[in-house]
Amino acid sequence: MTELVVTTYDWVPVPPRGYVRDLRIRWALEEAGLPYRVQPVPFRERGEEHLAHQPFAQVPWLLDGELSIFETGAILLHVAERGGAFPPDDPARRAAVTEWVFAALNSVEMASLPWTLFKFSGDETGTPGRKALDRFLALRLDRMEAVLAGREWLAGDFSVADIAMSDVLRLIDRFDGLAEHPAVRAYVARATARPAFVKAHADQMAHFAAADAARA
Amino acid sequence: MTELVVTTYDWVPVPPRGYVRDLRIRWALEEAGLPYRVQPVPFRERGEEHLAHQPFAQVPWLLDGELSIFETGAILLHVAERGGAFPPDDPARRAAVTEWVFAALNSVEMASLPWTLFKFSGDETGTPGRKALDRFLALRLDRMEAVLAGREWLAGDFSVADIAMSDVLRLIDRFDGLAEHPAVRAYVARATARPAFVKAHADQMAHFAAADAARA
Repeated sequence: MTELVVTTYDWVPVPPRGYVRDLRIRWALEEAGLPYRVQPVPFRERGEEHLAHQPFAQVPWLLDGELSIFETGAILLHVAERGGAFPPDDPARRAAVTEWVFAALNSVEMASLPWTLFKFSGDETGTPGRKALDRFLALRLDRMEAVLAGREWLAGDFSVADIAMSDVLRLIDRFDGLAEHPAVRAYVARATARPAFVKAHADQMAHFAAADAARA
Repeated sequence: MTELVVTTYDWVPVPPRGYVRDLRIRWALEEAGLPYRVQPVPFRERGEEHLAHQPFAQVPWLLDGELSIFETGAILLHVAERGGAFPPDDPARRAAVTEWVFAALNSVEMASLPWTLFKFSGDETGTPGRKALDRFLALRLDRMEAVLAGREWLAGDFSVADIAMSDVLRLIDRFDGLAEHPAVRAYVARATARPAFVKAHADQMAHFAAADAARA
């Protein structure tokens, strides 16, 4: 087995701490019980080497031997495969996890992340486009409420799909956007109570705190 | 081999025609040379049976024997696998295609689709949130411009990643949002000139035209 290496920034300002996307990968690796190492890359200077691994100049990417993989969705599926979550004789399991990872990162986050851009900007102007965006997010949350009222996790047992979905929903909750969706809120609470999330989150916070200390 | 069945609506209004997401799946199936059947589902009434296949009440989903898969990203990866695009001895190919499918449907479409909501609304109000959204899209397009200036397709040979990415970018082009990104525009033109796209697009347009004729 080759070594697994997760990249993240060497430092970030306080607001995104606890939400930087290496969290999703740390969480999946903790759930899978796979050993890994975290490798910091410069936050302030992102040169050609960074772009060769992550063309949008973001983090994380995963190194697995000669493989370098970007996009948290692709990394989560790779980690699930690596951790034995997709038995070859059960194509339905792979399909169910894969479709819900995409549901999190396309159907839901496509509505929620732009909505948080307006929230971060303190922009509450009710222009027609903004109303369309709010309706788009409400539609998605209404559907997730119906789904999550009837099941504990998205694809049978807990999977990387729940990591992607609960982390997407967690950012909405940060701006109190789940107040009218109790099953969705309960799902986020259930997911983030898992020991693997608690460790991954604490490790990310400690990583950036250590960076502050080193600069002080 | 089980039969492959792609669902789409039995009818849609004119504006989304040519952009309904069964197009991506038709295109991938045409590229792979896999036979398939198109099954219409009601546009106006989407009941429990619809939601059991597609929890966001959208189309398409793919039926492959006992498997029912939703989310175009998950379906595209399944079709690629079915068509032999992922040789077992080449994990790098699977990883590269997978990360670029996610890049299209998360990193890029998360910026572009909300931007088109404002465009569809005729909303050009420059509020702080809207400026943040415009910057978000411009950042993504700038990075895609750099990537596409240096390569013909995203992951080596043409793949389902190019179907996802070019279809996401095509909707931006519809609102003339690629004017400052010539390599991106050339990529969309290159992708949509492929015979498999031309057939898939013509088939979708004919499907909805036949629905008009049946109602007349």
